[in-house]
Amino acid sequence: MLSKNITISENGTLEFAGYNTVELAQKYSTPLYLMDEEMIRERIRVYKKALEDFFPSGSVPEYASKAFSCKRIYEIAREEGINVDVVSPGELYTAYKAGFPMEKCFYHGNSKSCQDIEFAIQKGIGCFVVDNVSELSLIDNISKSYGVIQRVILRVTPGIDPHTHKKISTGSVESKFGIPIDNGDAVEATRKALSLKNVSLEGFHCHIGSQIFESEPFVTAAKVMIKFMVKIKNELGFIASTLNLGGGFGVQYTENDPVIDYRAKIEEVAVAVNEICKNENFEVPKILMEPGRSLVADAGMTLYTVNSVKEIKDYRNYVSIDGGMTDNPRYALYESEYTVYNASKASKEADYVATIAGRCCESGDLIQENVMIAKPEENDIIAVATTGAYNYSMASNYNRVARPCVVMLNSEKDYIAVKRETLDDLISLDV
Amino acid sequence: MLSKNITISENGTLEFAGYNTVELAQKYSTPLYLMDEEMIRERIRVYKKALEDFFPSGSVPEYASKAFSCKRIYEIAREEGINVDVVSPGELYTAYKAGFPMEKCFYHGNSKSCQDIEFAIQKGIGCFVVDNVSELSLIDNISKSYGVIQRVILRVTPGIDPHTHKKISTGSVESKFGIPIDNGDAVEATRKALSLKNVSLEGFHCHIGSQIFESEPFVTAAKVMIKFMVKIKNELGFIASTLNLGGGFGVQYTENDPVIDYRAKIEEVAVAVNEICKNENFEVPKILMEPGRSLVADAGMTLYTVNSVKEIKDYRNYVSIDGGMTDNPRYALYESEYTVYNASKASKEADYVATIAGRCCESGDLIQENVMIAKPEENDIIAVATTGAYNYSMASNYNRVARPCVVMLNSEKDYIAVKRETLDDLISLDV
Repeated sequence: MLSKNITISENGTLEFAGYNTVELAQKYSTPLYLMDEEMIRERIRVYKKALEDFFPSGSVPEYASKAFSCKRIYEIAREEGINVDVVSPGELYTAYKAGFPMEKCFYHGNSKSCQDIEFAIQKGIGCFVVDNVSELSLIDNISKSYGVIQRVILRVTPGIDPHTHKKISTGSVESKFGIPIDNGDAVEATRKALSLKNVSLEGFHCHIGSQIFESEPFVTAAKVMIKFMVKIKNELGFIASTLNLGGGFGVQYTENDPVIDYRAKIEEVAVAVNEICKNENFEVPKILMEPGRSLVADAGMTLYTVNSVKEIKDYRNYVSIDGGMTDNPRYALYESEYTVYNASKASKEADYVATIAGRCCESGDLIQENVMIAKPEENDIIAVATTGAYNYSMASNYNRVARPCVVMLNSEKDYIAVKRETLDDLISLDV
Repeated sequence: MLSKNITISENGTLEFAGYNTVELAQKYSTPLYLMDEEMIRERIRVYKKALEDFFPSGSVPEYASKAFSCKRIYEIAREEGINVDVVSPGELYTAYKAGFPMEKCFYHGNSKSCQDIEFAIQKGIGCFVVDNVSELSLIDNISKSYGVIQRVILRVTPGIDPHTHKKISTGSVESKFGIPIDNGDAVEATRKALSLKNVSLEGFHCHIGSQIFESEPFVTAAKVMIKFMVKIKNELGFIASTLNLGGGFGVQYTENDPVIDYRAKIEEVAVAVNEICKNENFEVPKILMEPGRSLVADAGMTLYTVNSVKEIKDYRNYVSIDGGMTDNPRYALYESEYTVYNASKASKEADYVATIAGRCCESGDLIQENVMIAKPEENDIIAVATTGAYNYSMASNYNRVARPCVVMLNSEKDYIAVKRETLDDLISLDV
């Protein structure tokens, strides 16, 4: 199976995190998101320990909560003692209501409004990751009016393309995010940050993209960033104490993706960073990383029920399910690959070519095209693996389809982390 | 301007449906969806009258409510006396709660569950548009248990590609929707429908896709469909009284799209249908059409506030707004074109090349790339035209961004049709 938390039960059905998926489907109805709480905690600990072991004191992962945001996940992040990234008042408020310490929250985003910034400062946000110069002024002004000195780090673009999907590549100079190093803008922004009275600059942030399987793009980014930090030290006399390398490593969506040893990859980055700093005679900064996908993606699985099977001879076999792009728009958006199982017949041979069709009245509403599964019948349970990231968080009510519930699984119990939307929820804002 | 409901005020700001957009942005905050109620009603009346004038009695438009679904739009459809299409319990329930007559509701979709069908029958649904044979059996069984004879029409695929975007093309034989005519499946499905005791077959449905600007694809589809109906008459002795041609015509997203005279196009289809029926010696059936986009798209406009302007020399000018793919995912999904205005400076020359960047932490969150607008400043209001269809209905809470409110405009008043989501709404399902 794709991941160690996916197994087959004695009666031939699929298990996830030790739970029989067909029974969970019956208990909670479908579509259903499952989250393996123990895998999330294990993955957090791997990142946390590796950053602690290989980098200076204070180095810590920040959970990029846009991957999967609900109160429960911030509770888990709090219990595990890591930081979190938020990108909106909504994420911040959720973390706040979950009792997550605000000083360990980093506020990201390329487009922060005056109200967003004010809200974050009111709530006591730890640090802003500043995207541009006008935002910097805004934070300074608002901080002044609240009588605070606000911690900030500057997001700069190192000018690196890590060869990932265009829509999740973020490090090139023409990115909508951050301030380019290449053209001198980043130095000027730093000069400005240092001149402002109500912001306290701690360091720099870069992000090169998602789904990166090698340490090399991170090392390349670190090299660019440390050279930039040396330049800042020499030109402006400012020694940055923090370098945020952004992102995390990739996850396995299918057997074609490599299996990642996260600790080993972080160690590779650390060896390179230490070497670069030594060569540049620059003190190794605290290193922050922002894993989102790699903390939660393969801790997730989605279950669907087959409503019908339509075989169009010489063309395709459509397996129509009770969910689709409304709960997982990633195939519609990026043609993302996924591993699909017939959970009801997991021990049978996967010898049937199936296109998993969502329920929306839209041709593009497919979960996957021409994947191999055991021949399905109506009412079989279909499982899609690695859906813990960017599925629930990207879900919509297109076609007025209600969003599924999220059930967390641990060795003691299964429990609801996010309730299923009801029909009355769907019309609750209609006047 | 793109549409007759877009004008410029005396003080140089943009007006929509006669309202000053900058004032509306101030009154309701941004992002903000606007809907021009009178344009919706006008467009409905054009379709309704054309179908009445050019086709046999009983021919009527059905509003494809997945384009924009909320209680208010079903009230408008009810007042205008047209049918509606629904595709989920959520849409059906919304129509029901809006007092829309259930017997004028058509239930669509390629993936109806047992529960969906039962819910629709309980509510007294007018007619199912049946997608496949297993659904047909299910409807028959459930109808029997409720002691009803359920009206149905069969959705068949005529095998036509109207050269629209792949993701909104639906008429080819390999579509996930409907039963192919080509391979004989449609005849067998008809035979089965006629054999069932608790369904009453009224006719056939086809849908060839969206954003079609010519009558020709509809005429081609009608020809295939009428020949099929003749074949059914000859082979099975069943004379279909209804032909649903699906979809509606395209709308103008930019000046490059043609302006459509909907009445003239429908007349062209009618002339052809009458000719085909005459040649085939087949009584002209009631014609149903399912406009969604063309009833509401250009009755809609979205307003945003500029949070920052970032000029990356030799690359791009990013205008970062307070919304994006969360309220309009169509550029991320299809690279859809839109017309953009700087509503605050509508009378100034549109001589600035802008990439309108959404607020989500995702490179693909763009509303439009390299469009010409008047040079924007922070806090300017940006207007995106033709957003009445597939914007609110496709909106998500990605990044935990709250969905905007929808404000309806008519000659008497502006009023809220859908309330803005609050931070507490965002966490209301979190346990």
